[in-house]
Amino acid sequence: MKTETFQIDGIPIHYARCGRGPVLVLLHGWPEFWLTWRPVMDLLGNHFDMIAPDLRGFGQSGHPNPAPSDQVGADVHMRDVMGLLDRLQIEKFGIVSHDVGAYVAQGIGRAHPKRLSGLFFFDCPYPGIGNRWTEPTHLKEIWYQSFHQLPWAAQMVGTSRETCRTYFSHFLNYWSARPGAFDDVMEEWVDNFMSRGNLQGGFNWYLSANASRIAIMQGKAPPVAPITVPTCVRWGTESHVLKPEWGDRLGEYFTHLDYQPMHGVGHFPHREDPERAAGEIRGFFERLRN
Amino acid sequence: MKTETFQIDGIPIHYARCGRGPVLVLLHGWPEFWLTWRPVMDLLGNHFDMIAPDLRGFGQSGHPNPAPSDQVGADVHMRDVMGLLDRLQIEKFGIVSHDVGAYVAQGIGRAHPKRLSGLFFFDCPYPGIGNRWTEPTHLKEIWYQSFHQLPWAAQMVGTSRETCRTYFSHFLNYWSARPGAFDDVMEEWVDNFMSRGNLQGGFNWYLSANASRIAIMQGKAPPVAPITVPTCVRWGTESHVLKPEWGDRLGEYFTHLDYQPMHGVGHFPHREDPERAAGEIRGFFERLRN
Repeated sequence: MKTETFQIDGIPIHYARCGRGPVLVLLHGWPEFWLTWRPVMDLLGNHFDMIAPDLRGFGQSGHPNPAPSDQVGADVHMRDVMGLLDRLQIEKFGIVSHDVGAYVAQGIGRAHPKRLSGLFFFDCPYPGIGNRWTEPTHLKEIWYQSFHQLPWAAQMVGTSRETCRTYFSHFLNYWSARPGAFDDVMEEWVDNFMSRGNLQGGFNWYLSANASRIAIMQGKAPPVAPITVPTCVRWGTESHVLKPEWGDRLGEYFTHLDYQPMHGVGHFPHREDPERAAGEIRGFFERLRN
Repeated sequence: MKTETFQIDGIPIHYARCGRGPVLVLLHGWPEFWLTWRPVMDLLGNHFDMIAPDLRGFGQSGHPNPAPSDQVGADVHMRDVMGLLDRLQIEKFGIVSHDVGAYVAQGIGRAHPKRLSGLFFFDCPYPGIGNRWTEPTHLKEIWYQSFHQLPWAAQMVGTSRETCRTYFSHFLNYWSARPGAFDDVMEEWVDNFMSRGNLQGGFNWYLSANASRIAIMQGKAPPVAPITVPTCVRWGTESHVLKPEWGDRLGEYFTHLDYQPMHGVGHFPHREDPERAAGEIRGFFERLRN
């Protein structure tokens, strides 16, 4: 595993890279950073050349200032990722993504379809979810999207390593069908989010995505062109922040779609069941070549 | 101002009392305790005999155990309040209420209408709000109702006096049209919520009210009989957690209703503008006697 940091558009963008073969870019979500992909990277090194960046404000990537910002949306992350790939002189690649990374991947899928071999998602936040986000029984799943927008939230969560651990343990375990899926890296998670303004860096996503999220809930989001890149979605049947039945409208947004439920896993298949997750990734990108 | 604690149904129930005249019971909300009423109590002592209890789990009242509980709903608080009034040998009374207290007052309005001279509310959470709670632009107002149900929430908020102050300052100021309305008592607020398990005591309301809240949002709550006790609602035009336009269906739930917007105040008229709040209370209960 090689790690390196480049200045991309004036921001240090850190990434980890390993393996040989066609390039896959692995885009993490919240509350994650590149390390979330390590188990599948360890399994797929003989098949792919994998590049896992830390999105701006996460991990060891930088962010321009420590104050809360609503200017760090999917378009900004997309420019960072594309800038990194240009710097690495990579023309063609596939994307494996999740959560925040899935928004970035959809942006790249619309803006740069010719650069992409395929898009792979573990569950998928997409506009077709619509007002189902606001179902009364779902409010307990999305409160954090509002909390993260408060100017004092990062300070409260980051009061101590203990409060930080409590907070992230909650989400990593609550959203996993296999509790303890992140136990082996929990101290690295705390180290990471306690450093470099990363708590606010992650919360900036929620500030930046808020307006479009509300528009989607209200059914007022501007229509988007369907993504024509071959797409594979594996959606954990035990995922409850993104419910598997919400995949029903994926076909309206992805014209070449391979969608299957992924049984017995929740929101983090890549950590809950890395072998099966790696097998799904490999299977999809190998089928594309045949 | 006299304060006293009685054992009511095995729980110490604390209350403050002052003034001379017909009895008014003042029921506080979250995040409050009896002291929230002090400014109006100071102004109305020549007109009413006012009794301001701390609800179970709040203030200096007790709670049976420190663990999270979903068994402390409006019916339990109602029994405590009625037990206190029986102990004080008070037969007839009016209620002034707010927030959590408003749910308790509605319970008493249905169960004990003959004991009541009238019901007064500063804004009013009532079933007619329905699914408007879940409007996308309102999610930022209700996240705490979900957060409070997490088993680690009280511990995180109560990490230190500073985290506690940050948390309560947020709500008391954000919900007030006059920021700083609670500044003179902020340290008493922190003292109070940092002691005796009161953080969890308050959060228990959200655990206990959750099922009925969801049923109301879903339109599945069982119908309730209208309250026939004379009722006055003064709803702050600047209240945003409970929006003034949501008062439109009050007439379906209160048959003898005097409803007016209260201009320029938010969720806490009794602290934001005590003179006007006291005037509204006095005006309503004096009109009832004429």
